[in-house]
Amino acid sequence: MTARPSLNPIDLILKKRDGGNLTRTEIAGFVDGVTSGDIPDYQAAAFLMASYLNGMNGEEMVGLTHCMLHSGSVLDLSDIPGRKVDKHSTGGVGDKMSIILAPIVASCGVPVPMISGRGLGHTGGTLDKLESIPGFSTQMSIASYRQQLAEIGVVMIGQTDDIAPADKKLYALRDVTATVEFIPFIAASILSKKLAEGIDALVLDVKFGSGAFMQSETQARKLAQTLTDLGEQFGKRTVALLTDMNQPLGFAIGNWPEIAESIDCLHGKGPEDVMEVTLALSAEMIVAGGKASSLEEGLRMAEASISSGRAWAKFEELVARQGGQLESIQDPAVRTKGQAMQDIHAQQSGTISHIDARIVGRAAVSLGAGRVKKEDVVDPRAGIILSVSAGSEVQVGDVIAQLVASTSDRFEQAASLLSTAFEIGSEREIGTSRIKDRYSDGKWLNP
Amino acid sequence: MTARPSLNPIDLILKKRDGGNLTRTEIAGFVDGVTSGDIPDYQAAAFLMASYLNGMNGEEMVGLTHCMLHSGSVLDLSDIPGRKVDKHSTGGVGDKMSIILAPIVASCGVPVPMISGRGLGHTGGTLDKLESIPGFSTQMSIASYRQQLAEIGVVMIGQTDDIAPADKKLYALRDVTATVEFIPFIAASILSKKLAEGIDALVLDVKFGSGAFMQSETQARKLAQTLTDLGEQFGKRTVALLTDMNQPLGFAIGNWPEIAESIDCLHGKGPEDVMEVTLALSAEMIVAGGKASSLEEGLRMAEASISSGRAWAKFEELVARQGGQLESIQDPAVRTKGQAMQDIHAQQSGTISHIDARIVGRAAVSLGAGRVKKEDVVDPRAGIILSVSAGSEVQVGDVIAQLVASTSDRFEQAASLLSTAFEIGSEREIGTSRIKDRYSDGKWLNP
Repeated sequence: MTARPSLNPIDLILKKRDGGNLTRTEIAGFVDGVTSGDIPDYQAAAFLMASYLNGMNGEEMVGLTHCMLHSGSVLDLSDIPGRKVDKHSTGGVGDKMSIILAPIVASCGVPVPMISGRGLGHTGGTLDKLESIPGFSTQMSIASYRQQLAEIGVVMIGQTDDIAPADKKLYALRDVTATVEFIPFIAASILSKKLAEGIDALVLDVKFGSGAFMQSETQARKLAQTLTDLGEQFGKRTVALLTDMNQPLGFAIGNWPEIAESIDCLHGKGPEDVMEVTLALSAEMIVAGGKASSLEEGLRMAEASISSGRAWAKFEELVARQGGQLESIQDPAVRTKGQAMQDIHAQQSGTISHIDARIVGRAAVSLGAGRVKKEDVVDPRAGIILSVSAGSEVQVGDVIAQLVASTSDRFEQAASLLSTAFEIGSEREIGTSRIKDRYSDGKWLNP
Repeated sequence: MTARPSLNPIDLILKKRDGGNLTRTEIAGFVDGVTSGDIPDYQAAAFLMASYLNGMNGEEMVGLTHCMLHSGSVLDLSDIPGRKVDKHSTGGVGDKMSIILAPIVASCGVPVPMISGRGLGHTGGTLDKLESIPGFSTQMSIASYRQQLAEIGVVMIGQTDDIAPADKKLYALRDVTATVEFIPFIAASILSKKLAEGIDALVLDVKFGSGAFMQSETQARKLAQTLTDLGEQFGKRTVALLTDMNQPLGFAIGNWPEIAESIDCLHGKGPEDVMEVTLALSAEMIVAGGKASSLEEGLRMAEASISSGRAWAKFEELVARQGGQLESIQDPAVRTKGQAMQDIHAQQSGTISHIDARIVGRAAVSLGAGRVKKEDVVDPRAGIILSVSAGSEVQVGDVIAQLVASTSDRFEQAASLLSTAFEIGSEREIGTSRIKDRYSDGKWLNP
């Protein structure tokens, strides 16, 4: 702290401890100190907990986002024609939407620069899914990223070291100090990374329910609102959909299984729930990208992109460009051959009234499809293929799901976990939309 | 954390973050983890801040004290005859009481095993004062500590590595994470160290006012009560005096200057305020040690120990036993020779209405008598000798204090600071007792 003697980290902690609000200079001092390592982890941890418990006001959150954004490179893509639009999901079980919508939206003429993360806990990550395509590389230089976006209109990579390094440090610390679930931190973390990508607009998929990060709808609404307002404050068009994540999205959970299901979707054979959310998000992105003047028009364009094969062609172009083997996506069943499999059977007859997304996600992780700790290695082909969805009628002994993994040694634990995910009753759940609400321009559609 | 997978530190942080109360097992897991290093500093820091902000109940505080106490060796002195009694002061400016009362109490037949700390900030520490006696060693093995206590009835050393190591780690962390001023932590820190000494009873001097750690009387009362009740819960007779630390104690501030003043006190020529508190604390210790049946009797014994020369003889015995040069304490003025000195003069005529203890303490530190950072080296002979006390009448230009240091280069800063400590008015402050109240057996004398 010799360089900034006026910003003693203890004074910053003390101010938050005693319920005060930090100035922009103080927040900059904290973020700079954490990024440079001048503020040690234990002081940052005390600061995070004090902020968590005493709160941060809107100005502090904007300041934090700003400082985290500018802790690294902020890309300027203004030389690439068109309004660049990205989507961010708060994460769920079976959430493969990025893989489907990026080629859809790009094929409609909206450039999609997408920097994604890995899965942790019961939720999957887009990067892990993409990397389950043999040869697909998610690492490239910023120069190649720009060039690919300019040439084919879509690029999907992992976070680089020079994008929001403060977030990387703070996130790792929040993760081990029980300070993750705090809206100002969540919002600053998401926005600082997304704003650094050089986008003009952002569409948010904020999920609630058992499989989501925010289980309560109230909290998810608060997060959606905070993220959207914050994005607009940074001059980026931002829209949020509030979607239901109580049950898994689609039938496939796991990295390669979800790629295979995404391929079905791009061929127009996707599960209804996945397509509903994917098309709605695509329509938002097409409108935000200025290529449609209404959501209805955006939706028609997205549907046409699939039915015409343009979305699929764009996906093949993306995979080829990033080194992925086209044969694998052209015949996805091949890649599943030789895997150990085990069927899960219905214990009773009746109607599937509910499938708990969180339990399904945890069962997939226990098969090796995800990570408990950041260091864990993911089995790209492991996962769960559900044979039923809420509303399906089953007889005792019917196959309701299939476990897939490289070896069968993890099946026992996963099977016993997964069997608790299904509720079978006599009542058929009324099929409802996954999309619960939409927030933009400071208001909800269905408040 | 592999050894205790059931006690995930994140779960402990989470529980305190969400306002829960920890079980004894959970607290033990935290303290053990911090001591062994299995719980990293950043998780401990988050835990400390969450506890600070959400509070700890009595049971958690007892658990914390117990676990910190048993994080290292707990001495058993039961083979040494007599009830062993120690005193703990929460720290002040000019507080040299331990040096005077240890020989008094020991000469009255009560064994005094005393483990003390160093000064930090504006307050001094007994260890630094003792070490200003040339040759005096405050480091010895536990075996030598026991032997000296058995043979001469008094021993004064510094904290060893095996006494409450958890406190050492936690204190260092609290110091840099703004989590020091929290009564459950303060109480557990003090008691865990004192209970490890093998004492039967403890007399507390809890100070309030500008020169004290706890400036507010209300907070000091709360601390006194918490410490006393906690000590009794551990089966040790515990009594607290609440004393006023708004003005410096005595005339000497600094390590050797305070030793010189303590020598005066042991010769029966000490300042009134120092003697009032010293004799009261001595009387408490003599009663707690079972050598007097009333405080009046204890007081008479303490006074007789001084007037008879027995206290002085015991002090000489202590100094000689711990390697100190007897000539230095027999003629303390010799050690001051060759020091740079500077007089501070009264700026106006009138009556000294107040001398601010904290400012005097900080001026002494700026002379080199204390530490701002733990690593600072102390100048043993530096300090301040006041020529006046509250109530003294002065004329413009009268000497009101003298600065002493190895070199004169620090005088300018210290003089300018010290000159703000004196309030000179026309009103003479009514001399009042330093002892404001006494807490024992669950009640205050003057609530």
